[in-house]
Amino acid sequence: MDIEAFRKAGYQAIDRICDYYASLQERPVVSQVQPGYLIDALPSTAPERGEQFDSIADDFQKLILPGITHWQHPNFFAYFPTASTFEGLLGDLYSSSVANPTFSWLASPACTELEQVVMDWGAKLFGLGDHFQNKSGVGGGVIQTTASEGLIVICVAARARYLREHPDAKLEDLVIYTTTQTHSLGVKAGLVLGLKVRALEVKKENEYGLRGEELHAAVEEDHARGRRPFIVVATVGTTNSGAIDYIEELGEVLKGYPSIWYHVDAAWAGVALACPEFRPLEKLDAINQHAESFCTNFHKWGLVNFDASGLWVRNRRDLIDALDVTPEYLRTKQHDAGLVVDYRNWHLGLGRRFRSLKIWFVLRSYGVEGFQAHIRKGVELNEHFASLVRGSRDFELVTTPSLALSVFRLKLPSTSASSPDSAESLAAFNDLNRALNLRVSAHNDKLFITQTMLNGMICLRFAIGAQRTEKEHVDRAWDLIKQCAEEVVEEWTRNSES
Amino acid sequence: MDIEAFRKAGYQAIDRICDYYASLQERPVVSQVQPGYLIDALPSTAPERGEQFDSIADDFQKLILPGITHWQHPNFFAYFPTASTFEGLLGDLYSSSVANPTFSWLASPACTELEQVVMDWGAKLFGLGDHFQNKSGVGGGVIQTTASEGLIVICVAARARYLREHPDAKLEDLVIYTTTQTHSLGVKAGLVLGLKVRALEVKKENEYGLRGEELHAAVEEDHARGRRPFIVVATVGTTNSGAIDYIEELGEVLKGYPSIWYHVDAAWAGVALACPEFRPLEKLDAINQHAESFCTNFHKWGLVNFDASGLWVRNRRDLIDALDVTPEYLRTKQHDAGLVVDYRNWHLGLGRRFRSLKIWFVLRSYGVEGFQAHIRKGVELNEHFASLVRGSRDFELVTTPSLALSVFRLKLPSTSASSPDSAESLAAFNDLNRALNLRVSAHNDKLFITQTMLNGMICLRFAIGAQRTEKEHVDRAWDLIKQCAEEVVEEWTRNSES
Repeated sequence: MDIEAFRKAGYQAIDRICDYYASLQERPVVSQVQPGYLIDALPSTAPERGEQFDSIADDFQKLILPGITHWQHPNFFAYFPTASTFEGLLGDLYSSSVANPTFSWLASPACTELEQVVMDWGAKLFGLGDHFQNKSGVGGGVIQTTASEGLIVICVAARARYLREHPDAKLEDLVIYTTTQTHSLGVKAGLVLGLKVRALEVKKENEYGLRGEELHAAVEEDHARGRRPFIVVATVGTTNSGAIDYIEELGEVLKGYPSIWYHVDAAWAGVALACPEFRPLEKLDAINQHAESFCTNFHKWGLVNFDASGLWVRNRRDLIDALDVTPEYLRTKQHDAGLVVDYRNWHLGLGRRFRSLKIWFVLRSYGVEGFQAHIRKGVELNEHFASLVRGSRDFELVTTPSLALSVFRLKLPSTSASSPDSAESLAAFNDLNRALNLRVSAHNDKLFITQTMLNGMICLRFAIGAQRTEKEHVDRAWDLIKQCAEEVVEEWTRNSES
Repeated sequence: MDIEAFRKAGYQAIDRICDYYASLQERPVVSQVQPGYLIDALPSTAPERGEQFDSIADDFQKLILPGITHWQHPNFFAYFPTASTFEGLLGDLYSSSVANPTFSWLASPACTELEQVVMDWGAKLFGLGDHFQNKSGVGGGVIQTTASEGLIVICVAARARYLREHPDAKLEDLVIYTTTQTHSLGVKAGLVLGLKVRALEVKKENEYGLRGEELHAAVEEDHARGRRPFIVVATVGTTNSGAIDYIEELGEVLKGYPSIWYHVDAAWAGVALACPEFRPLEKLDAINQHAESFCTNFHKWGLVNFDASGLWVRNRRDLIDALDVTPEYLRTKQHDAGLVVDYRNWHLGLGRRFRSLKIWFVLRSYGVEGFQAHIRKGVELNEHFASLVRGSRDFELVTTPSLALSVFRLKLPSTSASSPDSAESLAAFNDLNRALNLRVSAHNDKLFITQTMLNGMICLRFAIGAQRTEKEHVDRAWDLIKQCAEEVVEEWTRNSES
């Protein structure tokens, strides 16, 4: 493809992306294809001779789009949102055009320096302390692909530091602390690093947040049996329910254990720190005072296209000491002179995409005000959704709504014989809500929500944040959920009577 | 930005990318900016109010492009190439437009199934055996961000399998085997996983490839001292010199140690397997017979924009058993029914980009013939470069040219008093070639090559593969290298005489 053919195919791509977003609402939210649909439709080998690009582009429309679950659909309320903005998309496009792997400053100075700049912009946007900023020369921010990879990086740094301080420690005795509510990134870090993970229990009465005394008891218990917790992964905004650990209490406890790293994962909720009114809820002061590292994903609720996970550390040497690889062919005079950051030593791989560009495009286009407005809109829509749940006799909120996430369940019909709080009642609750989830997912062309489990309770999650979601979409989603609930309850009652 | 504003900005981006490629040859290969150029030019916080996109797009031209080292420049011969094709770029653009994290089949069926398809296309393109294909249902291919991350994944799988078979083994005793020539990914995997890495020595007379007997002796030695090698990372086409380990011999030795995983890293050279004539050189038969995993990067010499690293395994269960995370909110009926692949359990993170699309676009646009033609052109240009070196009295090839890579050095001037092969002579050689490298890098606006070290010898690398490189660029690069060499030798001789 020569330059003029690219211009034509590029214009066509832009036009088709415009059509895609214009028609998004008419598409099914969740792809309706069956397993194997594409494998069966495609040849089993690459073509021997090149094909015309026109027919390839047409196949994207014909074969690929029907197999896409539309995360940008205004009726997408599952998992957490994955951002897509035109500005982010354009950033990605420009960055693809200068394709390079950016493993050192010299390999493309702009990529490294723009990452330093936008991560400082992010730190200030979220109210993070000066010590987390690149310009401090001590701490700093780096873009990771995902929060999971970011946590692996942090665990590697924490482990290396712990082993320097405790050269006698055995890997078999090291423990990563999470809670039962921590995202799968905790388990994954343990699997990848081959280290134990202890998921501390949290209580309903603490809204599923970990308390200081619970952490303290666990550390003492583990120390007594020769185990060595070396990192605590606390969460601000869990995936299950948006729970927030007691960040201040945990920080106070960890003052007594300076070898234990304190990581705060706010992959989803952290971007809400852009709004001053949410900072007390999200424990910003405690994060700044105590945390050694902090993560939030621009690519979830933060308007930047996947992937762009922000990771800030108090001390960049912890990363570099743990991850530095500089063979002869990667040495540069700028690095040797200590003049530049070489981000390859701040992450798992060697090469990396030029991801700062899309963050720069988004933050400049939206400005702080526009970013805040986006977050506030999500919170307001969720307040509206929560008010609908509260106003219903048939449903209940299982936890206090957290920012743009509500967790709720269908109540047992009044005909139910089970006494409240009994095991029998819990089983009935769960059967009922599993049935509701199944019923709603039969309409997943119109609405996508997911279920989760909170200390044994099956609940439904309603997560807001797609850029095009408005009040009318929330209302229609609620109508559909109610309708499904009526059908489920009717069937339930019929079955109880028969 | 609404849809029509995006159309305008998108057309502009396409036009400017066309201009970029049209003007590529006139740009300096290596960015000429000084450390801090961009940090100093940008404000230290995000703007309070959103800015017009026009001025943001203009700043990309004004501020970012001067800080880009142009990896697509025809005079870029450093490191290894990083591919950029218009087709790959368009694939990336379409995939950004449906932004989603693809952690399960249901999250976007097309992303999962297209990855299964193109990785099978790749397996066939490179002549990999049926057991490496997804359609085997046993083995399969997966796209990783980089070969470094792919190796971490493989080490995790190899470690888990080893520990299942040897539950008494201590992590402290596990050893990753590489050679002194292995890419930094070997060291990095050790740093990340906290495991020992033993870099086996290789010999000049074996062209820096590892022999079976050397591996055998090392394993026996380590076993005797209680160490447990659990993976061998062999290379087809090292970064230093394109060296190829004795893949067949290593495989035969490892038959005697079935618990040791056999990984073949061909991150750079593997794509040349598309051409049948290079398969014997690259030991395809031995790879198919012995390797448990194989990696090659589409994003280096393989025409697909970064990032797209191909990883194939003989047994997918090894990955899934080591990496599976499926909390309640990620369960799907398709997964529970065993109908689909959920790629989150084949890599480090949870979410992942839709990267198969750009591979699909490239393989269909080029066809097998076009892909082969691109590889053959690189090899032919390198043969031409090697012939220039061979024809010169002042230079020597340090190793046999490997596909599209030559490693060479400047010979000592005949006035040199040192006797060949003496330590004094080596030091002189190295001083001379360091000086040459410095001199050439003073012209890095016109030419970018890098130096490396081979068993103590400083050498220069000449790596071909940028899509726009033609014979004239190689000729001009050679002229510049010769001119720099004359200046270096003149200065050297002057200094010797004084």
